[in-house]
Amino acid sequence: MGQVKTNTGIPIKVLEGFCQGALRSLDVSVEHAQQITDVLVTTDTWGVYTHGTKLLPGYVRRLRLGGLKVDGEPSVVAEGPAWALVDGRSLPAQVTSQLAMQSAIDKARETGIAYAGVRNSCHFGAAGYYAWQAAKQGMIGLAMANDIPSVAAPGSRKAVIGSNPIAYGIPAGRHDPILLDMSIAAVAGGKVYARCKRGEPIPAGWLIGPDGQPTTDGSLYPHETSLAPVGAHKGYGIGLLIESLSAVLTGASVTWNVGSWIFDEGTDPTDHGAAFMAIDTTAITPSGDFCERIDALIEEIHAAPTADECQQLMVPGEYEWTNRRQALHCGVDLPVDVVEALTSLAAELGMEFPEESAR
Amino acid sequence: MGQVKTNTGIPIKVLEGFCQGALRSLDVSVEHAQQITDVLVTTDTWGVYTHGTKLLPGYVRRLRLGGLKVDGEPSVVAEGPAWALVDGRSLPAQVTSQLAMQSAIDKARETGIAYAGVRNSCHFGAAGYYAWQAAKQGMIGLAMANDIPSVAAPGSRKAVIGSNPIAYGIPAGRHDPILLDMSIAAVAGGKVYARCKRGEPIPAGWLIGPDGQPTTDGSLYPHETSLAPVGAHKGYGIGLLIESLSAVLTGASVTWNVGSWIFDEGTDPTDHGAAFMAIDTTAITPSGDFCERIDALIEEIHAAPTADECQQLMVPGEYEWTNRRQALHCGVDLPVDVVEALTSLAAELGMEFPEESAR
Repeated sequence: MGQVKTNTGIPIKVLEGFCQGALRSLDVSVEHAQQITDVLVTTDTWGVYTHGTKLLPGYVRRLRLGGLKVDGEPSVVAEGPAWALVDGRSLPAQVTSQLAMQSAIDKARETGIAYAGVRNSCHFGAAGYYAWQAAKQGMIGLAMANDIPSVAAPGSRKAVIGSNPIAYGIPAGRHDPILLDMSIAAVAGGKVYARCKRGEPIPAGWLIGPDGQPTTDGSLYPHETSLAPVGAHKGYGIGLLIESLSAVLTGASVTWNVGSWIFDEGTDPTDHGAAFMAIDTTAITPSGDFCERIDALIEEIHAAPTADECQQLMVPGEYEWTNRRQALHCGVDLPVDVVEALTSLAAELGMEFPEESAR
Repeated sequence: MGQVKTNTGIPIKVLEGFCQGALRSLDVSVEHAQQITDVLVTTDTWGVYTHGTKLLPGYVRRLRLGGLKVDGEPSVVAEGPAWALVDGRSLPAQVTSQLAMQSAIDKARETGIAYAGVRNSCHFGAAGYYAWQAAKQGMIGLAMANDIPSVAAPGSRKAVIGSNPIAYGIPAGRHDPILLDMSIAAVAGGKVYARCKRGEPIPAGWLIGPDGQPTTDGSLYPHETSLAPVGAHKGYGIGLLIESLSAVLTGASVTWNVGSWIFDEGTDPTDHGAAFMAIDTTAITPSGDFCERIDALIEEIHAAPTADECQQLMVPGEYEWTNRRQALHCGVDLPVDVVEALTSLAAELGMEFPEESAR
């Protein structure tokens, strides 16, 4: 979307090595460093650069200041046949989230469907990673989390609910999994930032000003504005469901009690909540042909007639899988802002970002 | 919304008696007639008149023509610890859906969360009824269903996915349950009809014309248009998830294979699918204070600052609970179109609609 890209991609192994090295330099364990890195680099391979390695400097800041813990392990602190509660102990949320989703998957294998709730977590990156974790194992996966409010409700003067991401992954047979990762805001905050940075006006319907009325003045974002919820009461309502499953049900902090992982001092835990669900398609679908049935649905959509400007309809995730195949082959084509952020992080840590050397 | 209302309400017992009488006259069993009636009349008490007793003539048509069956019972045909598959045997979907949701609730009581999928069903009325069924029993409830396509995808020339309703109910303590019932269309088809009937233009963003471009020409609805998905790819994506959970997973008919319960000949089953989930809040939340935590969230939202035109923020369902209290006290204030539909149905069945006598 108008981002200037570097000309050649960074090989995935090289990018992973850099991330792991940065985390290891802060005494993050090998296993945790690998888990965090896999979430961030996978997200970059999808072309979702706002939620990939660009987040690493923010996580590093918190690891250095103590808001994220280096030592310890998340663990299941309560459970039943088809549910688990995971205490993240303020460790990096990517570690906790993978444990929680795997717990839901393992339980769903026994029971058909399972839920894992998380408390004492932090910003977990792209929800889609965890949904895919389930889809790779033959499960329909759902991943969601709460956050400090940034989204308005219809009629509100300021934000009342987080942008509360939700993702799902659905396994297919001949095709890639269907994979949707969305927030309940009309648009991602990152898109507002990008427009502001380029000096472009903000389209109507994106932002709510400090008087509770729509505004197109991006200079007010984020501190004096909130994001409009997608579909007005619909996005707001789905946001409340996500808040309930991620935080009310799990004992995590709710709405304004969640710490701001970007804007706070970095010294205290944020206590984000999250929720993961897995549904075992192989157990439930009659005759076990779930993936064939999903393939047929995908192919029906591919064959549907399109408007003139559209070549072929896609299901969610197809754009990202195409990007990923490209990245696996040619490296990750990081945008300039990400390269800058990682170069700056490298300098701070006394490392070198492998931008040039790797090409 | 501009509907002319009758002056006094019909007492709930009287309205229930009429619906049950109409169904009994077709040899529907006492128990099924009560179950169908409770869904329709409850929906009217919420003020959701598009999905209440107004639907009865359509169901009666199918019962008479054989598309809906009078005899038999829906039943669980496959199950595991936390899942069940229910065959609706083309019985009225209100009967099947209540059985399925209760199955999910009963299983969730043992396991923490459960899923019940439905096949061989039909149009089930308001999804919110079944979500409330769970919330009344201390569970977070989710209810959803597929339908014949009426909603476009971004870039499609015609509909590719049903309006696929989804509802959730969340139990509270001092407050009414949070209850959202929405479709994945930008607006309900009923709103398009109502505007057309009143000769009003259709707002931009509601309809997609036969060329795949937005249109404001309501005269094309429904046969030559599709509804826009709410939030573009977001509504479309959620619609695919609902389709997958309701139909792909359950073995029900998918997209265009679903019968049109309104427009078909009425003689054949529609084979709608549906999905229900229940999550046991009392088992999962630490210290069992889920309802207190939800109350606190509701009260935080009530206290949030509002834009000038808004007196107080609401959580989903509050408008409906206020309507319901009014209806329980003063009767159901049916709009003219519903009274007309039921009066006409009464004449057809040799009954009398109790509009006048009951007042």
